Amino acid sequence: MPEKKAILVVGAGDATGGAIARRFAREGYIACVTRRSAEKLAPLVEQIRAEGGEAHAFGSDARKEDETVELISRIERDVAPLEVAVFNIGANVQFPIVETTSRVYYKVWEMACFGGFLMGREAARVMLPRQRGSIFFTGATASLRGRENMAAFAGAKHALRALAQSMARELGPKNIHVAHLVIDAAIDTEWIRENFPERYAAKAQDGIVNPDHIADTYWMLHRQPRDAWTHELDIRPWIERW
Amino acid sequence: MPEKKAILVVGAGDATGGAIARRFAREGYIACVTRRSAEKLAPLVEQIRAEGGEAHAFGSDARKEDETVELISRIERDVAPLEVAVFNIGANVQFPIVETTSRVYYKVWEMACFGGFLMGREAARVMLPRQRGSIFFTGATASLRGRENMAAFAGAKHALRALAQSMARELGPKNIHVAHLVIDAAIDTEWIRENFPERYAAKAQDGIVNPDHIADTYWMLHRQPRDAWTHELDIRPWIERW
Amino acid sequence: MPEKKAILVVGAGDATGGAIARRFAREGYIACVTRRSAEKLAPLVEQIRAEGGEAHAFGSDARKEDETVELISRIERDVAPLEVAVFNIGANVQFPIVETTSRVYYKVWEMACFGGFLMGREAARVMLPRQRGSIFFTGATASLRGRENMAAFAGAKHALRALAQSMARELGPKNIHVAHLVIDAAIDTEWIRENFPERYAAKAQDGIVNPDHIADTYWMLHRQPRDAWTHELDIRPWIERW
Amino acid sequence: MPEKKAILVVGAGDATGGAIARRFAREGYIACVTRRSAEKLAPLVEQIRAEGGEAHAFGSDARKEDETVELISRIERDVAPLEVAVFNIGANVQFPIVETTSRVYYKVWEMACFGGFLMGREAARVMLPRQRGSIFFTGATASLRGRENMAAFAGAKHALRALAQSMARELGPKNIHVAHLVIDAAIDTEWIRENFPERYAAKAQDGIVNPDHIADTYWMLHRQPRDAWTHELDIRPWIERW
Repeated sequence: MPEKKAILVVGAGDATGGAIARRFAREGYIACVTRRSAEKLAPLVEQIRAEGGEAHAFGSDARKEDETVELISRIERDVAPLEVAVFNIGANVQFPIVETTSRVYYKVWEMACFGGFLMGREAARVMLPRQRGSIFFTGATASLRGRENMAAFAGAKHALRALAQSMARELGPKNIHVAHLVIDAAIDTEWIRENFPERYAAKAQDGIVNPDHIADTYWMLHRQPRDAWTHELDIRPWIERW
Repeated sequence: MPEKKAILVVGAGDATGGAIARRFAREGYIACVTRRSAEKLAPLVEQIRAEGGEAHAFGSDARKEDETVELISRIERDVAPLEVAVFNIGANVQFPIVETTSRVYYKVWEMACFGGFLMGREAARVMLPRQRGSIFFTGATASLRGRENMAAFAGAKHALRALAQSMARELGPKNIHVAHLVIDAAIDTEWIRENFPERYAAKAQDGIVNPDHIADTYWMLHRQPRDAWTHELDIRPWIERW
Repeated sequence: MPEKKAILVVGAGDATGGAIARRFAREGYIACVTRRSAEKLAPLVEQIRAEGGEAHAFGSDARKEDETVELISRIERDVAPLEVAVFNIGANVQFPIVETTSRVYYKVWEMACFGGFLMGREAARVMLPRQRGSIFFTGATASLRGRENMAAFAGAKHALRALAQSMARELGPKNIHVAHLVIDAAIDTEWIRENFPERYAAKAQDGIVNPDHIADTYWMLHRQPRDAWTHELDIRPWIERW
Repeated sequence: MPEKKAILVVGAGDATGGAIARRFAREGYIACVTRRSAEKLAPLVEQIRAEGGEAHAFGSDARKEDETVELISRIERDVAPLEVAVFNIGANVQFPIVETTSRVYYKVWEMACFGGFLMGREAARVMLPRQRGSIFFTGATASLRGRENMAAFAGAKHALRALAQSMARELGPKNIHVAHLVIDAAIDTEWIRENFPERYAAKAQDGIVNPDHIADTYWMLHRQPRDAWTHELDIRPWIERW
């Protein structure tokens, strides 16, 4: 009987997170998916189960230390050893600097970076004694460059990349694979369809990303043998300007 | 009679911040220097006055929005128009990721990044109507790369650089000069002398930085004509490995 | 009957190039492998054929325009449409700047960069009318940073990355996938075994790269659907310091 | 009597090179200026002399090793010790990759990079025994990023930056200050005035760079004390988008 293994996807409420969970579930991982309200994850869990996979939804606020600690304890205790942890929460807001409230600046960091720290640290904590596991962080173009109106979002994303790089260098030699993926794309979602219809029209020619294809890259990273790990890569549609 | 102009140095308690304040004071700027406890700034204020300059110490917690708002209001109201604002607070701590408490992770960000956001935004607010001024941020090697044990510090420093870049791009075309300086060096301080005596021994051959020389670079940046602004530069001693 | 497709590996004389050729040959691509002397490629060609693949060795000097033009013409005419082109020539030499002869500086560039330009351009030329294909360039840490004694090698590698980035941005919207791979590792070869025995000893713990694992990443890149292309990634063993 | 010191500006035919030569001449340096044809430098030499400075024009092809070796020998023998060397040759051409002839690709590299290597190495050769001097390289945005139609120019500029970085790291600890300046701007020249009249119209609001202001930054770099050297910086007009 193959050993059971869990993947945690923090921020599974969007298309990318959901696709990653489904992908790993198809490979036999037990998908533990979170967002603040577990109920909204019911369709995803049902979908995974309908595909023959195992999934559990957790209502958990990624910004709360006690909730994240408890989340990972429960997975380890009730589900299976945590083999993969993916942090996939964005918070793309844009404001001119003088219209950026301290509340917004803090909230964006708390959501897009601090939550990543909590998940990353707690995942490392349970993975280190076993000396195995993968921890992946979803980045964006704002991870690499600041831009007008982007002080808050770029700040959080830069800090998340610094976290990923620091953890990759520290945990790599302990056999934990940490990677950061810059996803620079419109993703095939309702939200893009409704708010950016011309952008969405590019779908016909593969101009917006199918979340399943992003998920394939996360799976590929997790499968890499440890003598040839990738720590940073980008994902963009062919027609994207960058 | 020349118009009065103020420079604010947030984090003037260290050698670099003090040197910047003295440098601009020698050029006729009224130095407004802050740290949490104003009393500790008394020697700096006296030194500036002894050199014929004008200086005011403010006890102000850079992490508190109301205190920063009040600080800049007072400078504008009681001292002179704010012409230059320098954010110079570091928070270089090192911990393995699993030993990084959420309190440390948050505090380092709050001090080394959130305080910079508050100062930067409030400075922009008073400078924008006048369409003039300089806003400078002190960075470090950790602004550019994550490293083992550096998740907290590199995260805060990356986010600060993202802030500087975002503001530079947004405010440049409004005639406000925003720059980020990577200072990658041991600086000539008591602390280095006591804690890293071998490192300090490099002083004899200019191997540690004289804070006055850093201050010269801040002054140079402020003096650059607007057709030829520098937005990012590094400062390192000649013998530094990088 | 499936259509025939060719992969060209320029610089197939080393372990990485050979592994890439074998990998694509196993997937049904006709491997066209080059080095200056075709005879030395006989063992590789035999190995591919023994594995059931098709392979052709070409003696071709990658630095000569006429030879590269002729090479790709012959592949297109005599073998199959060129679907994938990989430039895999390094030239890692180290000299202090004043001991770097102009001949060395030129030769390193000619081999590690100019050859890449010739292959990249000629591959683009035949791929553009078909609006399909992949062009990959093998990079190194020196692609990203200059270092002491590395002026020649880092120069050539930086220029090669600039070529890859320029081509990726230009040809992406024409459905040609261009990517640059930073391989920062000792690779499992005779040369490492003989010259760096302690480094080679890391093999026991996967500390040096199995070329087959690098080849898997090239294959993965080629297989990416065009809505989710990766343009830059790194490959390093888990224990590598970076 | 103060010791005599020479500055060499390779590529003094453009506005930037000329301004650098004049600036250092005003500070007492003997300006040795080159371009392929010395006659065209006569106005620059006259201007420097009219300003009370000393200048010598050399017809020298920066791409020829023997000419560069001879040039620096002559300066050392006939003029004064070489204290500063500036490489200021660009070669901004743009071609789609398939229209980039190997001749163009080579010529751009030879002019914008190989010439820099020759000057840099020969300058290092005479500076190393004296353990003093500055070597500066003029970069561009293409030093940092490849772009469509820019394979040749970005390649040469990336390689030049790799040269500067390698030399900075190698020669810094030998008291030779090597720096790379990214100049991302339209510069106030006839050429811009004639070819980009709308761009030139930005001059009224300081939207194009005054070469004298660039020269001030080169002078500032040379004057930096060695405990606080800058190795990389950018220069852009306030309204430039970047």
